[in-house]
Amino acid sequence: MDSSDKKYWVGFDLGGTKMLAVVLDSEFKSIARSRKKTKGFAGKEAGLDRICTTIDSALEEASISPDQLAGIGVGCPGPLDLEKGIIHEAPNLGWTDVPMKAHLESQYDCPAIIANDVDAGVYGEYQFGAGRGSRCIVGVFPGTGIGGGCVYEDKIIQGANCSCMEIGHIPIVSDGTLDGCGNVGSLEGMASRLAISGAAAQACYRGQAPTLRELCGTDISEIRSGALATAVESGDKFIKKIICQAADYLALGVVTVVHLLAPDKIVLGGGLVEAMPELFVDRVTQKAKERVLPSYRDTFKIVAAELGDDSTAMGAAAWASKSLKAN
Amino acid sequence: MDSSDKKYWVGFDLGGTKMLAVVLDSEFKSIARSRKKTKGFAGKEAGLDRICTTIDSALEEASISPDQLAGIGVGCPGPLDLEKGIIHEAPNLGWTDVPMKAHLESQYDCPAIIANDVDAGVYGEYQFGAGRGSRCIVGVFPGTGIGGGCVYEDKIIQGANCSCMEIGHIPIVSDGTLDGCGNVGSLEGMASRLAISGAAAQACYRGQAPTLRELCGTDISEIRSGALATAVESGDKFIKKIICQAADYLALGVVTVVHLLAPDKIVLGGGLVEAMPELFVDRVTQKAKERVLPSYRDTFKIVAAELGDDSTAMGAAAWASKSLKAN
Repeated sequence: MDSSDKKYWVGFDLGGTKMLAVVLDSEFKSIARSRKKTKGFAGKEAGLDRICTTIDSALEEASISPDQLAGIGVGCPGPLDLEKGIIHEAPNLGWTDVPMKAHLESQYDCPAIIANDVDAGVYGEYQFGAGRGSRCIVGVFPGTGIGGGCVYEDKIIQGANCSCMEIGHIPIVSDGTLDGCGNVGSLEGMASRLAISGAAAQACYRGQAPTLRELCGTDISEIRSGALATAVESGDKFIKKIICQAADYLALGVVTVVHLLAPDKIVLGGGLVEAMPELFVDRVTQKAKERVLPSYRDTFKIVAAELGDDSTAMGAAAWASKSLKAN
Repeated sequence: MDSSDKKYWVGFDLGGTKMLAVVLDSEFKSIARSRKKTKGFAGKEAGLDRICTTIDSALEEASISPDQLAGIGVGCPGPLDLEKGIIHEAPNLGWTDVPMKAHLESQYDCPAIIANDVDAGVYGEYQFGAGRGSRCIVGVFPGTGIGGGCVYEDKIIQGANCSCMEIGHIPIVSDGTLDGCGNVGSLEGMASRLAISGAAAQACYRGQAPTLRELCGTDISEIRSGALATAVESGDKFIKKIICQAADYLALGVVTVVHLLAPDKIVLGGGLVEAMPELFVDRVTQKAKERVLPSYRDTFKIVAAELGDDSTAMGAAAWASKSLKAN
């Protein structure tokens, strides 16, 4: 087979609960996809098999054979060895030392790269979504923690052999809730979906959020983005206040990245923002513009992510293409 | 003259009180220098003349004629138009719309570029000083404000047409002193030399800093880095406490940049750090290492700047060389 026929890409998103494979043509148009539950509890060997089964399904749906692949990009959770393509640790899956790159390269006989899942998602938005045409974008994704990523002049900003842009862990206030690392005043202690759910559960307990209490009771595992959005729409004013406060803290994080990196766009994403895009974009924009230095006020826009669940897989494939061409 | 003879560089540092021209050979060894007072009050036309006189003196000392110059790099204060090479505003000089690049190019018939003075200084440390051999460095320079700069894989991180890394303006605490922009909780409100001098003057007034009071009275204009260092050495414990508190806030700024950019080195510089390098490096290191995520703890070093007053001029020349080669 002629090497010019090796023109398809696989982008893969290895999530804590689901995995997604997308097959893309040489123009990065998505031509097939396959999704499965991750089932981390079954162990990493079973997991690697399951990843390949998912890729195989997508290839089959696309009627593409593995020898037509130019490469595979995988967005992965956890501390990574980017060069060797190893997941050091994926706490949500219970896996350690997963040789992702080597496994995929031996299975599919094409180059594979791994990237941090949030970085890949931000690169996806930069190439195909809300960040198209920008010089520099920063993605901010409040979820259980708060993920972040930065693409600067077509490069993902990374550490020497690790990801960075851990915006959830920057200190923004001197007081506040303890975060998962035991620190006080980090952005994710104040503004993650988990922080919001924690405050919302208290409001439910106190009887200050009738709709949310009806929907979820007082169990924060039940208080997810959709329910929070419904509660706000239905007039749970206290919940709206909690969310606005979190958005104000997110704005402080945005003020930090604007002053440090001067991105043209800040892309807000994740389930919480998807459920209430206008509320988050408007509030964060207002508060961030109030606080930045005047000379930066008109240099950036805050927008909602556009690619939803596809961002990481598509971005991983595009980053694979870019990285492999650079070598 | 053969174009290969055009091998010398001029680096220029346009400061608020003094200006410095350095002539460098093709290996970027400094072969001559000239320094003058800036005299901003005399106006920008007189200022541009003075800049050229300073460059001419340095060229003369080096026995170099202008047609042997490969280029000129100038580190400038204030909001800049990097592309057009214009200083929009230099508040400390009272100058606006200074056509630096055009003026120098017409005077010396060689390409000229401008860069933010702190960026140029950080690039100087990256190429020739404390940041040599690093992949990514962040410079933090507490002075009247707190300047910052980042070199990432041999590029100065910049905005679309402005400088960035305004680390002094990132929010780090929810309370604290008002800074010069009227914001509460920004790094420079808490940790600049001016913030330290403000707190130190109060200690002098209250009689808690006998040495410093003897040296400076209670006028914060008199309370400069050297006097603060002398007071600490002489046993003014309250002054040491104030400086350690400022260093702890600087550490929070360092924690932010480590989580966002994962630099291998953070270079602390400026007069205050030069006067007490060990105190600052040790304290900021200790506090930052305590607070960063464990996976980042061993990824960075905090060091004192090495080039002193030469960093901006040398970095501006090196950045001119790099920028002109890239075009």
